[in-house]
Amino acid sequence: MEPFIYLDHAATSWPKPPEVLQAMQKAMEEAAANPGRGSHQMAVKASRVLFEGRKILSQLFQVRNQNDIIFTYNTTEALNLAIKGLLKSGDRVVATMVEHNSVRRPLEYLKRVMGIHVEYIPVNGQGQLDMAKLKAALESRPKLVISTHSSNLLGSILPVAEIGELARRFGAVYLVDAAQSAGCLDIDVSAMNIDLLAFPGHKGLLGPQGTGGLYISPSIDLEPLLHGGTGSQSEEKEQPAVRPDRYEAGTPNTAGIAGLRAGVAEVMRQTPQQIYRHEWELAQRIIEGIRGIRHLRILGPEAGQPRTGIVSFVSSEKDSSEIAFRLDREYGIAVRAGMHCTPLAHEAVETLQTGAVRISVGVTTTRREAHAVIDAVKDICGQRP
Amino acid sequence: MEPFIYLDHAATSWPKPPEVLQAMQKAMEEAAANPGRGSHQMAVKASRVLFEGRKILSQLFQVRNQNDIIFTYNTTEALNLAIKGLLKSGDRVVATMVEHNSVRRPLEYLKRVMGIHVEYIPVNGQGQLDMAKLKAALESRPKLVISTHSSNLLGSILPVAEIGELARRFGAVYLVDAAQSAGCLDIDVSAMNIDLLAFPGHKGLLGPQGTGGLYISPSIDLEPLLHGGTGSQSEEKEQPAVRPDRYEAGTPNTAGIAGLRAGVAEVMRQTPQQIYRHEWELAQRIIEGIRGIRHLRILGPEAGQPRTGIVSFVSSEKDSSEIAFRLDREYGIAVRAGMHCTPLAHEAVETLQTGAVRISVGVTTTRREAHAVIDAVKDICGQRP
Repeated sequence: MEPFIYLDHAATSWPKPPEVLQAMQKAMEEAAANPGRGSHQMAVKASRVLFEGRKILSQLFQVRNQNDIIFTYNTTEALNLAIKGLLKSGDRVVATMVEHNSVRRPLEYLKRVMGIHVEYIPVNGQGQLDMAKLKAALESRPKLVISTHSSNLLGSILPVAEIGELARRFGAVYLVDAAQSAGCLDIDVSAMNIDLLAFPGHKGLLGPQGTGGLYISPSIDLEPLLHGGTGSQSEEKEQPAVRPDRYEAGTPNTAGIAGLRAGVAEVMRQTPQQIYRHEWELAQRIIEGIRGIRHLRILGPEAGQPRTGIVSFVSSEKDSSEIAFRLDREYGIAVRAGMHCTPLAHEAVETLQTGAVRISVGVTTTRREAHAVIDAVKDICGQRP
Repeated sequence: MEPFIYLDHAATSWPKPPEVLQAMQKAMEEAAANPGRGSHQMAVKASRVLFEGRKILSQLFQVRNQNDIIFTYNTTEALNLAIKGLLKSGDRVVATMVEHNSVRRPLEYLKRVMGIHVEYIPVNGQGQLDMAKLKAALESRPKLVISTHSSNLLGSILPVAEIGELARRFGAVYLVDAAQSAGCLDIDVSAMNIDLLAFPGHKGLLGPQGTGGLYISPSIDLEPLLHGGTGSQSEEKEQPAVRPDRYEAGTPNTAGIAGLRAGVAEVMRQTPQQIYRHEWELAQRIIEGIRGIRHLRILGPEAGQPRTGIVSFVSSEKDSSEIAFRLDREYGIAVRAGMHCTPLAHEAVETLQTGAVRISVGVTTTRREAHAVIDAVKDICGQRP
């Protein structure tokens, strides 16, 4: 491949640590039988891959019983399982205006088909949640509170522990979308009162696509999203009650989960704290570098404030998609332009008409790459570096 | 690994062709951006991986428009999407007694929550469907007819073209579960009047786990199982109507789909007809070899009759699980014992109390391996080879 700078880590991390590919290959060669469906040696090895994956994830998120970790295809499936598995006709839900479509669309669907009530709490121009409005909304005693941990457009970080404490006080179930935070922000499901945690395997956890999961508090029973074979209690018409089987029908992605485990091991080796510091420092550099460009507005928290490795911006002179296109074709820099599947957040920061260019850094991003994108954006915006 | 004979291909095929691992590795290294979510070069490459995967699958199944092929996590998700996406309160469904729990459990769930009516058409002792009873059931004008293409316990093959013709005549939608047939039996969705075809990626199509799919006839609109981000029409509250986006929310398994494409390419190179002949011949050998063993009953079609590469049996003297356990530990041969997630089929052949031992062969199985399992079963059953 030609020289290439990948700054689309918020979509999926790349490249993966070599250990991830090695673990996948090893699993494909030695352990990719059908786990839990046989007692032969290779099926046992496959079960062990899943066991080890659940174990390391439960360490990362401070989950007591690893069987409360359910593997899914992606975060979207985890969120659909949580939302559709919990809510009943007439239920009230409080969510935020920085939710991704993977939260908003299931909610709007349930609104249409079973008349749930949804309130989206606003954020300010920097993507910070209006806590007074959240508290007021909680007075209506919602069954479920949903918040992302970090906006995938703005990089703003929501006070998950504080929201969790409020949700607990008002007797609501708390669902966190960790799509942008798993791997770079501390997550402790008990300390933060998180009842349901949806996470991707292929972003900050450095695993392959086709992996993700949902932590389900032992106090919560969801209706499964998938009904089918579990290799256990096969004679029963209903899904077995035992976890994880209850929520994992059909053949899982054994090799993918082996890769995910290797990715999480790398995250734990580096520590989420160090990864956050690395990504924050790079984001600050990029903000510093492009903030003076004419007609350009940087979205999200102000310089120096906490944020994940996302720097989005709009230009009043140039199309977002043109900027992204030229970054790719002329400079070999991959970023993303558009709506980022979060129209509510665009509404909040008034970029629904323009979309935005999103630069997102990751574990492997270097200072040199950060400077390359700064120079390229300056160049494209007519301000020679 | 120690010497090892893998005869659990009906659960998942193993080993995969080397091209599958190579394609996955190449995709991880060069194309595993987030497809359809960006216009940068690597996202375009990732989109191309999905495009090529859909293309080859549509060739295999004679699908006119490749966007009618939807990628899923596994066959179970495909079946859940088909069944839950189509049925409404009060609908009638006709299925068979050789369905897997991935069909039965979604149906029993919908029976419980929305009062659908389900009739399971019986099979005879060889696993052949009672066509007279099927015709009679069609008089009740079901909305949906579901049949597996081949029983995962008995290896019997259902007359899919004939059932499809009947379903069409009675105005029913026809859903086929191709878990055991994709890759070894001819499937032509138009010639066979198949409206919905659920298939695994990791069995007869030789791809990795974490892949599967559903063909959806252009005349059918399903409610999506997953609502969420699609990278298209992001400002809409509802899933976009355009396929495949409508049914594929969230990040897909790009590397897995690259592997699946390589697997299907190998299937098409060998041709399903030749693969069937190879597996049939091995199954016949195994039947021939073990049929004389005392107290042993072979399930499914009689010797010489059509069947997929599955030979299941029960012994009136020895536990199924003991036989499978000893095959594994003493002879290094992996087979599966138990219910195989298909209790109705066990009911049909009166093995609900005993379960069964299932030997299942695949593309890579050799005659030597077939003879090894024959000798080992004879040995365990006290009839020295």
